[in-house]
Amino acid sequence: MAEKKIVIVGGGFAGINAAKKLGRAQDCSVTIIDRRNHHLFQPLLYQVAMAGLDPSDIASPIRSMLNRYDNISTLLGTVESVDVDCQVLQTEVGVIPYDYLIVACGATHDYFGRDEWEDFAPGLKTIPQATEIRRRVLMAFESAERTNDLDEQKRFMTFVLVGGGPTGVELAGAIAEMARNTLKRDFKTIDASHAKVILVQSGDRILKQFPDPLSKYSKEALESLGVEVRLGDRVTDINGEGVRVGEQFVHARTVIWAAGVKANPIGKTLGAETDRAGRVVVQPDLSIDGHPEVFVIGDLAAAKDKAGNPLPGLAPVAIQQGHYVGKLIRAEVAGKITPTSRRPFHYLDKGQVATIGRRRAVMQSGRMRLKGTIAWLGWLLIHILYLNGFRNRFFVFLSWAWSYVTFARGARLIVAKAWKNSGTE
Amino acid sequence: MAEKKIVIVGGGFAGINAAKKLGRAQDCSVTIIDRRNHHLFQPLLYQVAMAGLDPSDIASPIRSMLNRYDNISTLLGTVESVDVDCQVLQTEVGVIPYDYLIVACGATHDYFGRDEWEDFAPGLKTIPQATEIRRRVLMAFESAERTNDLDEQKRFMTFVLVGGGPTGVELAGAIAEMARNTLKRDFKTIDASHAKVILVQSGDRILKQFPDPLSKYSKEALESLGVEVRLGDRVTDINGEGVRVGEQFVHARTVIWAAGVKANPIGKTLGAETDRAGRVVVQPDLSIDGHPEVFVIGDLAAAKDKAGNPLPGLAPVAIQQGHYVGKLIRAEVAGKITPTSRRPFHYLDKGQVATIGRRRAVMQSGRMRLKGTIAWLGWLLIHILYLNGFRNRFFVFLSWAWSYVTFARGARLIVAKAWKNSGTE
Repeated sequence: MAEKKIVIVGGGFAGINAAKKLGRAQDCSVTIIDRRNHHLFQPLLYQVAMAGLDPSDIASPIRSMLNRYDNISTLLGTVESVDVDCQVLQTEVGVIPYDYLIVACGATHDYFGRDEWEDFAPGLKTIPQATEIRRRVLMAFESAERTNDLDEQKRFMTFVLVGGGPTGVELAGAIAEMARNTLKRDFKTIDASHAKVILVQSGDRILKQFPDPLSKYSKEALESLGVEVRLGDRVTDINGEGVRVGEQFVHARTVIWAAGVKANPIGKTLGAETDRAGRVVVQPDLSIDGHPEVFVIGDLAAAKDKAGNPLPGLAPVAIQQGHYVGKLIRAEVAGKITPTSRRPFHYLDKGQVATIGRRRAVMQSGRMRLKGTIAWLGWLLIHILYLNGFRNRFFVFLSWAWSYVTFARGARLIVAKAWKNSGTE
Repeated sequence: MAEKKIVIVGGGFAGINAAKKLGRAQDCSVTIIDRRNHHLFQPLLYQVAMAGLDPSDIASPIRSMLNRYDNISTLLGTVESVDVDCQVLQTEVGVIPYDYLIVACGATHDYFGRDEWEDFAPGLKTIPQATEIRRRVLMAFESAERTNDLDEQKRFMTFVLVGGGPTGVELAGAIAEMARNTLKRDFKTIDASHAKVILVQSGDRILKQFPDPLSKYSKEALESLGVEVRLGDRVTDINGEGVRVGEQFVHARTVIWAAGVKANPIGKTLGAETDRAGRVVVQPDLSIDGHPEVFVIGDLAAAKDKAGNPLPGLAPVAIQQGHYVGKLIRAEVAGKITPTSRRPFHYLDKGQVATIGRRRAVMQSGRMRLKGTIAWLGWLLIHILYLNGFRNRFFVFLSWAWSYVTFARGARLIVAKAWKNSGTE
């Protein structure tokens, strides 16, 4: 049989796991394309933003993750569009044909049509965004220390998080803890522990994918750290001075966006149906209608579980989808199955976990519901185990152990954006 | 006695060590001003550029380094000028008066009047410069992998280092080793080990502050790694295509500047005599002529040893000067000495060390001259010991041990400059 050319777009959880399943597969030549050179362990990105971890602790070059497979090549580049009829990709570096295509290029923030808010309220999806948030949070305390104007000091020491999902909750908890523990000793003029952290959630509870008692516990845990949780409140404006929440204007120099998500626009070029967030509607085998050779997986896919409910944009979903499609193509190229004999994808929900701070977390798996120290230890264990590469696991574990004992955050650097001598810093 | 106000400009080796000596000194109120929030262990900055270490491994917030001293405050800000007659500093955040002033704001690159070269050949003094160099070196291999044009491939895989001092030598050795060991396995189209690394030195030997046999050994060690060392050659032009070395044009997409140095322009506002590189000529007690209350130390100072030879711009000189001035002011404020009874500064030369690569280094102390593995172990030990903070020492030691065993470089991330969704990456 002739060799089949399989192209994977995106080196996130979905793409990298599909690639691994196709590693050394007979008659399969795989190319994985990403516009970044690294795979990112997104669930810990907020720790980079909060100066607890370094970017390289949670990122690995895609090339080295896959270098043991001779049949996989890695290409750094941007995919512009897909022509499913001609079976080719338009990329920055030329046209690439495929026999099978796996589109797994994820999602980004959505400001609900108010893109101008991004300047004032960065989101957290990439390493540059994490370091930008780190810079803003640390600079806010520095600026508060420098000013004599008490109102201005208050504005610098007010932090607003928009969105009550895991990212918003993790960031709110981490800023509150950093202010109370790490930074308290460092400043002479201000008392960093007086920082005000506000979490705004439009719904009636935070972490709404968790059972109600765990949401309630999370809210109380945040409040015990001094975070003000505002439920049922909607952000109607953001500018350089602060945030309008409902009728009230909250003066705050630092605002972080952890709310909406929209799918990568490449999804639309596939010609398949997309949902409101731009996600591509997929068949039970994760291929698109009329094109059994084109798969969409990860955050870009609008897939459903057995009961017909949409699957959430979470790492475990992306990993399982990657494994499923990788194995499926492998079997099909080997002639073991045909497009008509494919079995549908089933998501095995192993549960979920979210952290609020030191020894404060929630965990749910099947009927098991945990909170507090035990859930927090579960969170630590799961994240260490799922991190890619032994080096990363080892160093992240050590960093955490260190921070736990000393309350310090190792990566508290404010780094200039410009590298030139002459550049403004 | 009334409290004396001591202002330190710059949190490098000189400033931070002066501050430490003034910590808890009676009747001394100290303010340390830096435009960055972190102290940087500059001797290991090339390892950040070469993806071996993370920025936070070699940098610590100045605030936390000094937070145990109640009489020291830290201010993030830029000093614009000094008025030595009125005893005040002009800063971004207002006017600051002083009784004693320690100016220790170091040096930056000098392109010998050709500032336009900086775009094509970044220097290595700050973290953003280190990550920019990392990005360029890693991107060069990625771009070589993407192109089918063999000449273009060659240009992407040619790296020119300008300057044969420790930084140029360390970078040349590190790029050659990275290409041969770390990257070789990662690429399918190109053979990374074919990368060409050229070190251009205008003098007749590299590492000219070392005894001649050690310079010779270093050159051979670099050559054994495949580096082409060009002695007695001068760079006459740099542009986006490469470097003109003497009469020959070398096509190279990546050029790094490790040659000239010029002092911070603040030195000139002191009104004291400056040398050709803009360094401030100081008295034997490191104060400036006519102003016993103003000291200039570190790379910004043109100080001399007993024999009248200029002291080099090295970390040990800065550290000893910082200690000397800190102790001097402490004693003077306590009334133990007067400006007329000050003893002159003496630099105790403990020797020097430079590394070329794995088990390749040179070391000289007094009459002792070492090279190879033993010098390399000496280099490791010294750099671990002098690193600030136990956490940094521990993590750097582990990173090195890891890299030594696996030949891997943990921080091989190409990170975009722009953080915005909409930004170009």
